[in-house]
Order: sequence, then structure tokens, then C-alpha cells
Amino acid sequence: MPREIEFLYDFGGPNSWFVHRAIPAIEAQGKVRFRYVPVLLGGIFKATGNSPPMMSYGHVASKVAYDRLEMERFMDRHGVTGFQFNPHFPVNTLLAMRGAVAAEQLGCGPAYRETMYSALWQDGLKLDDPQVWAGAVAAAGLDASALGELVQDDAVKAALVASTESAVARGAFGVPTFFLGDAMWFGKDRLRDVVEAASA
Amino acid sequence: MPREIEFLYDFGGPNSWFVHRAIPAIEAQGKVRFRYVPVLLGGIFKATGNSPPMMSYGHVASKVAYDRLEMERFMDRHGVTGFQFNPHFPVNTLLAMRGAVAAEQLGCGPAYRETMYSALWQDGLKLDDPQVWAGAVAAAGLDASALGELVQDDAVKAALVASTESAVARGAFGVPTFFLGDAMWFGKDRLRDVVEAASA
Repeated sequence: MPREIEFLYDFGGPNSWFVHRAIPAIEAQGKVRFRYVPVLLGGIFKATGNSPPMMSYGHVASKVAYDRLEMERFMDRHGVTGFQFNPHFPVNTLLAMRGAVAAEQLGCGPAYRETMYSALWQDGLKLDDPQVWAGAVAAAGLDASALGELVQDDAVKAALVASTESAVARGAFGVPTFFLGDAMWFGKDRLRDVVEAASA
Repeated sequence: MPREIEFLYDFGGPNSWFVHRAIPAIEAQGKVRFRYVPVLLGGIFKATGNSPPMMSYGHVASKVAYDRLEMERFMDRHGVTGFQFNPHFPVNTLLAMRGAVAAEQLGCGPAYRETMYSALWQDGLKLDDPQVWAGAVAAAGLDASALGELVQDDAVKAALVASTESAVARGAFGVPTFFLGDAMWFGKDRLRDVVEAASA
């Protein structure tokens, strides 16, 4: 039986996209599988006082350039292609992440995640516009009407809040974050470490 | 012939100490060797606009706690022991780093580095006090008189400035930084990556 790694994600940051794209080949090796846990990155930042990298050190040109270099290295290592930085960044992901909770309830979680990740980090869509969001959902063959209704549901909204609060309580301060039981790893560059720990 | 990795270091940050302690076992495998390149971290910060982690996110308790966890993991992975956070942190390292340049000229670079790293991150000394610095140097059996004279030498001061400016020009924004030719890696958690690249 493959061991389960929790993958706390928000569509809004590029580093979650990188991990999402790297996961299939890792899972194909049969030792681990990933459980996607939707969280609201903005809520984590607010609760912990943390800031997005672009706010913390966007003025340090060489550090920003190095981040891009490590993105390239990650893509090379994992055979990931197609990344385009979203021209509307930062995109508010409240709707998209409520949609992730809703999609899981409707049984279309994987297809919805794929749609959102592609829309944000390959197709450059402005997903915080509800019409753009609904258009992307419909274009992927998902039930835009049912999802659009469910994202307004109080229980769905509360579930995302609860998931985010739980992440903070467990020590998360950003995404991507991984848990193997109680042990936490942060960042796409720790993906190898958590997979090794889970495969040991 | 082992390939040479440049290791840009300043005694002042704990992460350079971790790398310093991990290096002997890595070099013993025979594939790489490290060339220590002294730089002044404060100068790099000033030139790039970067800040020490404690200033950037010292208020984010969970991120600080995670840094400590990754220190523990690094020590476990590399069999490193004895680390004690310096009670006088941050310690100005201008004298200690000029001393590193001077020690190389005097042919006692490795012994001097060992002395400084132990003093700062195992023995908790306040090395920016010239008397404490001279005492540590003398206690290690090094020539405190010759070193104390040479750190005042204009050419030694200029060499440290030049090394720091060169690091910034090559893209460095902190320490530990590694170069393999022109390719750069930042941070103790990238040590494995640069060693793998050099061993390939």
C-alpha cells in the first residue's frame, strides 16, 4: 500500500502548480500517493503574519532571479513543461478554492483541480473574475451551474475556513506544504525529502 | 580528480556552520572538494537589499519553528552535532572575516575557520569583541599577533570587499552560496543538489 502524503495547496501560487505537475510521475512509482487538501493561502498569511515572497523580497532582484532558476531546475528534474507566469498575478483564489471544496463534494475534484491549475499557470486566466471562472469550468465539461451554486453554500465556505485554520494549527505558514502524519515539510524544493521519508 | 565547488561563507550565519560541519564527510567520498570563499554577509545584504531571515520573518513564529526543524533534519542527515545558537546573535563578523582573508595569507586558513566556527556556533563567544576574538585565536594555537596585525592591512580589507562585490556581481544574495562554474545554488538545503551536479 502506498503511503499517503497530504498536499496542502492553493491554486494561487506557482509553486503549488509545480508540485501538482510533478505528482503523477511520483505516484506512478507506487510508493506514495498524495491527498490534496485545499487551503486558503491568504488566510494562512493573515493568521501567521507571513507574506508572499514577492512582498517579502520582490525588491531583491538577484533573489527573484534565483527563484526563477530553481523553478527551471524543478521543471527539468521532474519533466514539467508549459509554465507561464500569470499576467494577472496575484489572483484572488477565494472563489477557486471554495470551488475545490465544492468539486470534491460533487465527485469531480481531480478534474476541477486540473482545470484551475491549467487556467492559472498555463492559460493565464484572471480566475478571480466569476465569469472567467465559470467559463473555464464549463469549457472543461464540468457542471458550472452546480459548482456555481455550491460555492455559495455556507457549509462549503466553512469547510475551507476550517481546513485553513487546521493547517495553521498544525504549523503551516504557506503552500505547498506537505504532511506525513504530523511531520511537516514546506516548499516545492522539499518534495523530494517528504517522498523519501514516506518511501523509507 | 574531485570537482571543485566554491563555498561562499560568512561565519555569522548558522547555516554556513551547518555546511562547514557537513563538508568533511562529503569530501571523503572523493568526488568533490570545497573551496572556501570568504565574503561579508552584511555587505551582500547592503548591496542587494536582502535582509537576514530573522528580520524578514522573525515575527512568523511557525516559519521560525520550521527553520529550526530543518536544522535538526540537516544535522540528522549529515551526522552533525554540537550546535548552539549564539547568545550574542547577531554578531558583527567584519573582524572575523578579515581574519579569514589574513589567515589564508598566513597559511592557516583551515585552522582559523575551524576556530571561528566553533567559537561562534558551539562555544557562544561574542567574536565582534576584538579581545574575545584575539583570545579565541590564541587559544587555538594560532599566531594572534600576526593575525591581529594583518587584519588591519589595507590589502586584506580590500580583498574582502572585492570578494563580496564579486559574489554580488555573480548573483549571490546571502550565504551559504555555492558555485559550480557559473551555476549558483543558495542555502544549506541545496547542498545535496550542488554535490549531485558536481558528481554527475
